[in-house]
Amino acid sequence: DSERVILRVRELENELIKCKQKRCTAITRIEKMSAEVVDSNPYSRLMALKRMGIVEDYEKIRTFTVAVVGVGGVGSVTAEMLTRCGIGKLLLFDYDKVELANMNRLFFQPHQAGLSKVEAAEHTLRSINPDVQFEIHNYNITTMSNFAHFMDRISHGALEEGKAVDLVLCCVDNFEARMAINAACNELGQIWMESGVSENAVSGHIQLIIPGETACFACAPPLVVAANIDEKTLKREGVCAASLPTTMGVVAGILVQNVLKYLLKFGTVSHYLGYNAMQDFFPTMAMKANPTCDDPHCKKQQENYKVIDQAEQPKDVAKTPEELPAVHEDNDWGIELVSEQTDDELKAASGPVPDLPEGITVAYTIPGGENGASGETVEETEQSLEELMAKMRKM
Amino acid sequence: DSERVILRVRELENELIKCKQKRCTAITRIEKMSAEVVDSNPYSRLMALKRMGIVEDYEKIRTFTVAVVGVGGVGSVTAEMLTRCGIGKLLLFDYDKVELANMNRLFFQPHQAGLSKVEAAEHTLRSINPDVQFEIHNYNITTMSNFAHFMDRISHGALEEGKAVDLVLCCVDNFEARMAINAACNELGQIWMESGVSENAVSGHIQLIIPGETACFACAPPLVVAANIDEKTLKREGVCAASLPTTMGVVAGILVQNVLKYLLKFGTVSHYLGYNAMQDFFPTMAMKANPTCDDPHCKKQQENYKVIDQAEQPKDVAKTPEELPAVHEDNDWGIELVSEQTDDELKAASGPVPDLPEGITVAYTIPGGENGASGETVEETEQSLEELMAKMRKM
Repeated sequence: DSERVILRVRELENELIKCKQKRCTAITRIEKMSAEVVDSNPYSRLMALKRMGIVEDYEKIRTFTVAVVGVGGVGSVTAEMLTRCGIGKLLLFDYDKVELANMNRLFFQPHQAGLSKVEAAEHTLRSINPDVQFEIHNYNITTMSNFAHFMDRISHGALEEGKAVDLVLCCVDNFEARMAINAACNELGQIWMESGVSENAVSGHIQLIIPGETACFACAPPLVVAANIDEKTLKREGVCAASLPTTMGVVAGILVQNVLKYLLKFGTVSHYLGYNAMQDFFPTMAMKANPTCDDPHCKKQQENYKVIDQAEQPKDVAKTPEELPAVHEDNDWGIELVSEQTDDELKAASGPVPDLPEGITVAYTIPGGENGASGETVEETEQSLEELMAKMRKM
Repeated sequence: DSERVILRVRELENELIKCKQKRCTAITRIEKMSAEVVDSNPYSRLMALKRMGIVEDYEKIRTFTVAVVGVGGVGSVTAEMLTRCGIGKLLLFDYDKVELANMNRLFFQPHQAGLSKVEAAEHTLRSINPDVQFEIHNYNITTMSNFAHFMDRISHGALEEGKAVDLVLCCVDNFEARMAINAACNELGQIWMESGVSENAVSGHIQLIIPGETACFACAPPLVVAANIDEKTLKREGVCAASLPTTMGVVAGILVQNVLKYLLKFGTVSHYLGYNAMQDFFPTMAMKANPTCDDPHCKKQQENYKVIDQAEQPKDVAKTPEELPAVHEDNDWGIELVSEQTDDELKAASGPVPDLPEGITVAYTIPGGENGASGETVEETEQSLEELMAKMRKM
């Protein structure tokens, strides 16, 4: 009898070892990226970019830090792509939990349902590439104290602690969080990229925002193809936004491709790239900062940019954090969410619609605050936008 | 002592249960897709496509069968997207094993290194969505006996056994496999989609091929942005093709988006859509079948198409398998791989290069066979291609 028990112990021990081996990472950290072409080298296909003449110094990827805000349909795939590319460090911000209702997008798996998105993501990403450093924050960046902490981490949380991250990626699904990232990056002079997918799941976009140089998120009425509806709001009414793994995958792909081009200095980084899935149409455009932008930090960055631009200094200098007093405590952006408008409603609500390139339309109007000056503000914004667009076309 | 052993047994049993639970699927099969907006419904975001007016009958997705040939950087993500969308059945074909060198692309994880790609993929995909049926084939479709089996499965392996699959997706990394799929689909009149990524990792494309109607893979010199180099060949010399998860993700995304548009009848299905990652440029074009195509099954399909087209019958009829004798036993496509050519070399080698839209160039020339008639054949092909392009522009 005791013999049978001992046999059972051995059996169980062996089974457990096998089970754990299957779950454990079969990969160890490396010191230096190798270009050696062997099946066991996870970087051979990336280092080949050097031999092919695409990227001059691929290893430099390990020195960069990127913050991903929102780890949903676009953010999770974005984080996975950067992880597989061997990015130095990733900061992940999200306050949501994984749900089975997320399974129609890539990355999360059913067994992770109930876990926080950042924790589940970190676990998967670490097992994919242990060479990447992760810092996760399971909170909503739009509350006062979290926003301050978020500002602190993007300005000090790089691989070399104390330094600012190289890029902030906005992969959130609501307007308020986008405006929070916009405010933070304007204040810090932090370059960032916006991304979004429409609530009908068939269009999306990415946008590069260089504070002071290109239009910030408050400079212009947000352009279409952004999912500016908070899913939580929709849920209450028993409806939800549609989403597709295809659209999300394409948007994450063009986003991270532009991140790689920006960080590793190859190709042309797009200022704005849209994706219309119904027609396979990809509109592009560029838009300068709006001199009458409501965000004082944006205006201040614009003044700095003019000085820098005239002195013909390298553009990196624009990244130096500004000494402006923080205004984010006010939290009064005065912008409300207006969704599912028809083209006619949009035109009626926003006055003259800016003359945008084919395939790009305004997603939201900026309704006036309660001070009555709103009509004017909208009018002014439209005016300067048109001027900017006209200038842009001449470029 | 025996008490300690019994305790140890219990301990191990508990640990094993926990370990297995973590690995097991937390999701069960469903009978009917629900549109209910609850966190536990994996289809709520997809069924919302109906409410949004994008897709008329999303549930129909469950009736379709798609074959994915090649489960690498593009094919694995393609299979995952279709699985998450709730496709009825997937047939996966590949003969490769997962290697750590694949970790720079999405989907496979380090702990799967050493497993066959189709087995590893099926395991992951089943745990993501148990509602999908899977059929995997761990073999190279280009050998004689496997090719016959491949033909049999795509013509009989649908959800309703005995019927043909609805679509074949080509996600392979070499020219020979593309030509095998082309030969099979021409013979069967099977509609398929081609996809490819360049060996420098910064361009890609998808192409819809309707036998007899649009240009098949043998109708024209393959267009650029196809990774027509077998990675195995490259490995031997200590070099390998570059690859990026971004480019692969974008190509898989636009591929599956067009699969969804084709199967669920919404939007416009692209005939050819390229992706130039350096410039974020997405060229599109359409090309009719070449009346002087080398593949006799293609010519036969073209005759059928003319008859059907004149009779204005629905195009689905073109899918009926043809009664032509099988020629695939010959295996003499007479096409060799010519890679890494400069534009000048291409022009010199292929004679007059067809007048293609901006951003699309010819990837390969078709060198002559040993029968001496090759020069003529190339000449003829170029000639008719130009005629076709001219006609296309008039459309």
